[in-house]
Amino acid sequence: MKNNVIEKVVSAILSALPEGKKFYSLHEPSFEGNEWKYVKECLDTGWVSSVGKFVDEFEKKLAEFTGAKIAVAAVNGTSALQICLKLIGVSNGDEVLTSALTFVATSNAISYCGGIPHFVDSDFSTLGICTKKLRGYLKDITEIKNNECINKITGNRIKAIVPMHVFGHPVDMDPLIEIADEFHIVVVEDAAESLGSYYKGRHTGTIGKIAALSFNGNKTITTGGGGAIITNDIELGKLAKHLTTTAKVAHKWEYFHDMCGYNFRLPNICAALGCAQLEQLPAFLDNKRKLAEKYRKAFEGVPEVSFFTEPSYGKSNYWLNTIVLKEDFISLRDELLEKTNSMGIQTRPAWCLNSSLPMYQNCPKMILSTAEILEKSLINIPSSQNLFQKL
Amino acid sequence: MKNNVIEKVVSAILSALPEGKKFYSLHEPSFEGNEWKYVKECLDTGWVSSVGKFVDEFEKKLAEFTGAKIAVAAVNGTSALQICLKLIGVSNGDEVLTSALTFVATSNAISYCGGIPHFVDSDFSTLGICTKKLRGYLKDITEIKNNECINKITGNRIKAIVPMHVFGHPVDMDPLIEIADEFHIVVVEDAAESLGSYYKGRHTGTIGKIAALSFNGNKTITTGGGGAIITNDIELGKLAKHLTTTAKVAHKWEYFHDMCGYNFRLPNICAALGCAQLEQLPAFLDNKRKLAEKYRKAFEGVPEVSFFTEPSYGKSNYWLNTIVLKEDFISLRDELLEKTNSMGIQTRPAWCLNSSLPMYQNCPKMILSTAEILEKSLINIPSSQNLFQKL
Repeated sequence: MKNNVIEKVVSAILSALPEGKKFYSLHEPSFEGNEWKYVKECLDTGWVSSVGKFVDEFEKKLAEFTGAKIAVAAVNGTSALQICLKLIGVSNGDEVLTSALTFVATSNAISYCGGIPHFVDSDFSTLGICTKKLRGYLKDITEIKNNECINKITGNRIKAIVPMHVFGHPVDMDPLIEIADEFHIVVVEDAAESLGSYYKGRHTGTIGKIAALSFNGNKTITTGGGGAIITNDIELGKLAKHLTTTAKVAHKWEYFHDMCGYNFRLPNICAALGCAQLEQLPAFLDNKRKLAEKYRKAFEGVPEVSFFTEPSYGKSNYWLNTIVLKEDFISLRDELLEKTNSMGIQTRPAWCLNSSLPMYQNCPKMILSTAEILEKSLINIPSSQNLFQKL
Repeated sequence: MKNNVIEKVVSAILSALPEGKKFYSLHEPSFEGNEWKYVKECLDTGWVSSVGKFVDEFEKKLAEFTGAKIAVAAVNGTSALQICLKLIGVSNGDEVLTSALTFVATSNAISYCGGIPHFVDSDFSTLGICTKKLRGYLKDITEIKNNECINKITGNRIKAIVPMHVFGHPVDMDPLIEIADEFHIVVVEDAAESLGSYYKGRHTGTIGKIAALSFNGNKTITTGGGGAIITNDIELGKLAKHLTTTAKVAHKWEYFHDMCGYNFRLPNICAALGCAQLEQLPAFLDNKRKLAEKYRKAFEGVPEVSFFTEPSYGKSNYWLNTIVLKEDFISLRDELLEKTNSMGIQTRPAWCLNSSLPMYQNCPKMILSTAEILEKSLINIPSSQNLFQKL
């Protein structure tokens, strides 16, 4: 029976994919537009680095696409998130609430600011932070003093909460914002995986105070390496620009810096790629959603697993398509990973819970029962936009 | 008389430069080799990001060129320096000695590790750390306890010293290493500006424990944005690679990270540029040294300023050619900057001393009399390799 389930899963995956490929990667970039034209323009003009028109253009187009009032390109998503947290005031000893089920960059960015990740549980229906558990938990362990949320157990301030839109699926933001307001906690969205995902019509990353996006090579669009900060708070956005460009005060020749800034500006050559990729983003998203729909249908015939679909309140970019092994079949995970990868179908499990990594294992956390089950039962399957084939 | 001096300086600069250009930039990149070919290969294969052959190749070639046992590419020079300091153990409250006369990134990288920059004076003959003043100063203010150097005034540990090879001119490393050994301080070289510069036959950055290089757009070679860590300590180098690539433990599919790592890997598309640039580096260096020689001769006729030449013990890449206004003519600096920049000859002063920047003004420091004079009297003049014209 075990083998039978594995065969059924493999068949379902393959039935949604184009035939005859030797290797189906989890997520690979496609360069089918103006990438070479724009990159060549950088080389021809010599503007490859920190000066050049593509950075400005990329930022402008990104703001337009997401509906954010301002976008600031950065060297990668981790650095972008670090700056977001810095800007809203996370400093030494502050706790920052976030999912245990996230890529390690979320916790690392908190650490870079001197903050302490404080892990909260996930929700089966969204894969993101469970807002139902969150309120009760905060009621139990915190008190408000001088408009700040204090963890009564550790004595630390809880400064921020970082909802991460896991695999592109939007977190349920309305109750999360409500709780954050009630407890005087700032919302910083980790939208690294959710470019093109919407919550009740609003682009992910534009709902909290400020957010980070990522354009790493495995993302929906790529700039080689890259990320961005988006926000509707123009002053905060301007400060993000200042902080990411060494905090140099504009002057004809003087090198005067008024803060401890960062060298996080996106190189122009990477922004050139980004401009070309953004032009294709609507088509990429369309293909990705159609591929997800193929998978959804294919897995209707496999009751041992469920194909994870977007929550009803939102629209997902289906960055990484995900199947969830039902309780009785969780033990098949590693065998399934072994089988698919050996066949050239690239698959992977979710990340190890951040709360179990050596450097974060002593951080504060709530009971993470859902996250622990999700960690064991999720498998990502091939998701590149070019795997959807029009008939 | 004042106008006369300004005219003479402008004439001397122009006499070394090719005629008839509207704008002589301080330092611009040249893409005359395989840049297009390698970058196009990245786009054609889709390997633009964190995986791809150019990163490995760039690291290998960089190690070969510098003679370092291992090189690790990074997202920029600031990040590379941060990792160097982290690796040798700089942590919260440690002091790190460095020049006040340096780009702000040196002090920022120290800060990112929780360290406190401790500023030391410069040497007129090298522009780098004055080793003569350093020994006496450390004798006065420090004591050795359990093989650690303690600042008696602040009570902090002095963990490291960061000599910065200013404008490409090598610091006098032998006495510096001797003092560092005597006081149990680790030497981390900031070789951001000195790719192709040598101290007694050894490449800068290979003399201390570990070093950072930069390939920003204004550097001798560029990768768009980029940097590298070089060291002769292979174990330290391997740890640098691990730390700069999110400290992920190699596994077929698992996402397990054993340290708080960084997302500092150089994108493959940037490394592709770097491979092409490295091939041209010997020719670039040759041109830059010949341009410097032209300037040196041209300024023989201008006794009011001196053209800064490499110290006798070393060989400089002449990254930024530099003139020094003699004492009586320091007051002309801003006028000279104004005049040259208005004519399309891009010039700039040295950086504001880091010790005078708002975020570092309360850091410990020795009397910085030489650095203060240098700050007021240095001017960088156009230095791109393509400004040397063969006859």
